[in-house]
Amino acid sequence: MITVIAGGVGAARFLSGLVQVRPPEEITAIVNVGDDVELHGLSISPDLDTITYTLAGAIDPVRGWGLAAESWQAMETLGRYGGTTWFNLGDRDLGTHMYRTERRGEGAPLSQITAEIAAGWGLELRLLPASDDRLRTKLTIDGVDGRPIEIGFQEYFVQRQHSVPVRAIRFEGAGEAQPAPGVIDAIADAECVVIAPSNPLISIDPVLAVDGVRDAVTAARERTVAVSPIVAGAALKGPADRLLEELGHSSTVVGVAELYAPLASTLVIDEADAALASAVEESGLRCVVAPTVMSTPAVAAALADTVLESIVPDE
Amino acid sequence: MITVIAGGVGAARFLSGLVQVRPPEEITAIVNVGDDVELHGLSISPDLDTITYTLAGAIDPVRGWGLAAESWQAMETLGRYGGTTWFNLGDRDLGTHMYRTERRGEGAPLSQITAEIAAGWGLELRLLPASDDRLRTKLTIDGVDGRPIEIGFQEYFVQRQHSVPVRAIRFEGAGEAQPAPGVIDAIADAECVVIAPSNPLISIDPVLAVDGVRDAVTAARERTVAVSPIVAGAALKGPADRLLEELGHSSTVVGVAELYAPLASTLVIDEADAALASAVEESGLRCVVAPTVMSTPAVAAALADTVLESIVPDE
Repeated sequence: MITVIAGGVGAARFLSGLVQVRPPEEITAIVNVGDDVELHGLSISPDLDTITYTLAGAIDPVRGWGLAAESWQAMETLGRYGGTTWFNLGDRDLGTHMYRTERRGEGAPLSQITAEIAAGWGLELRLLPASDDRLRTKLTIDGVDGRPIEIGFQEYFVQRQHSVPVRAIRFEGAGEAQPAPGVIDAIADAECVVIAPSNPLISIDPVLAVDGVRDAVTAARERTVAVSPIVAGAALKGPADRLLEELGHSSTVVGVAELYAPLASTLVIDEADAALASAVEESGLRCVVAPTVMSTPAVAAALADTVLESIVPDE
Repeated sequence: MITVIAGGVGAARFLSGLVQVRPPEEITAIVNVGDDVELHGLSISPDLDTITYTLAGAIDPVRGWGLAAESWQAMETLGRYGGTTWFNLGDRDLGTHMYRTERRGEGAPLSQITAEIAAGWGLELRLLPASDDRLRTKLTIDGVDGRPIEIGFQEYFVQRQHSVPVRAIRFEGAGEAQPAPGVIDAIADAECVVIAPSNPLISIDPVLAVDGVRDAVTAARERTVAVSPIVAGAALKGPADRLLEELGHSSTVVGVAELYAPLASTLVIDEADAALASAVEESGLRCVVAPTVMSTPAVAAALADTVLESIVPDE
């Protein structure tokens, strides 16, 4: 069994490669819920949905999020009234949030709802939210008067298009949030644990912040391999590079290596960073150099193979 | 000022006639909220929306409810998961429910939200929910084992397509629900109060069940005129005829007259029922015979004129 610690787009692409080289029923993804948000009364889980839609082949290929063949009629009506429209919700996508909200109202835990939604798209891998409990990523930024204010993840990521400096990150609810059923076992029992090429600070960290998850990954360190989301000093998507700098890390594969050294025994870095391989190894991880920019399904599959081969002897 | 006690489709058509013969800013509609429902976490107010969309010229002319140029992508996704799809919510329409839910989450009362939505469509008349408080129409029907069960209005009206016999009707919350701001004054100060051609038992009664409303209408009886929703013994739309029978009333204009005699001094009946005019008057109301089937805007405007002339001397 392979277990992947996952954020959104980068993890979704990696998983779409992994299901080409491993039977999906042998794969578990443990997915970040720190980005989850309630808007207009609806429960929205962006990372879970990005992975589901991507693996279903239903993601919009141009936007990289949301569903293909999407329409935006609900948002247009909402805008007519001056409602909150900075978080774009397509009409097709809305059905997912309506279902999740309906089922939560009936008392179903997020993990069960997630399985139902995955089944609705015919997915055969196991998608687990990191926790069924409420956990929310909060970011401290400078307010208009210069004093620090704390905002929610989507207020940072979408409303401000991650264009403001971040002073601190906190995971609200982390003290109480328990791992969803199966999460700890999926890490403990995996032949290989993969930390997907997601943002270490806002996609992977909130998964690790769930009670017992960081310890479980640490205990599995020899079987754990991370894929760097930083290529040539930059994030392929999103603010990982700037966040690393702002929060005192190096925005290079070496900075990533330093963060992941306690958790993973191997770091896969892109060929563009080959010159940093020995610096990565000085952080205490084995370093594997491979193409990591998953521009096609074939590259994603090859990357998945490389990751598994770095840990699993027979692959 | 003219005040209309209103349900859904019949009231909406009457109001669309009234705004042709009176300045909209002189018109207040007090609208039933007993049909309101929460689905998928969204707050839905069908009668308020039917009136708003109708007066905005945006109602779907074929269905008679919901918006024209509607799409159904959200429902299609919801159906993929086996979610609750018996209550059809179009994509355009969803934006209204999202806005209402968002504003309620911010603590805004329904009356304020209703005004904002009406303003979003450029309406100039005043739409008031009967109450800002929770009031829900509940119907007792026979369960599968023959024992009585109580269901919500939409479970009766939409899910069962009002095809089951009703044993009793109750307005949950009626004991506590206070009239929305302006409701009592709108009745007390009106030169004419109109009871719209809506279902007396499930559209008008829940408005009257709000604390103080029945008394206010009774006090305005000499200025109050009702329009019969029953024509030739049948409801033009919906189950009014069967409900009247099932609950011990006559499903004729005489049955309507008996229900409204304590509240209204005049009943407008359709020409098809002209032969029952004297029987209506025996119930203690003046009877006006006129075309009431509002198949065109011109008929609706003429009916509005007839209604006002029956009360207001100068019209």
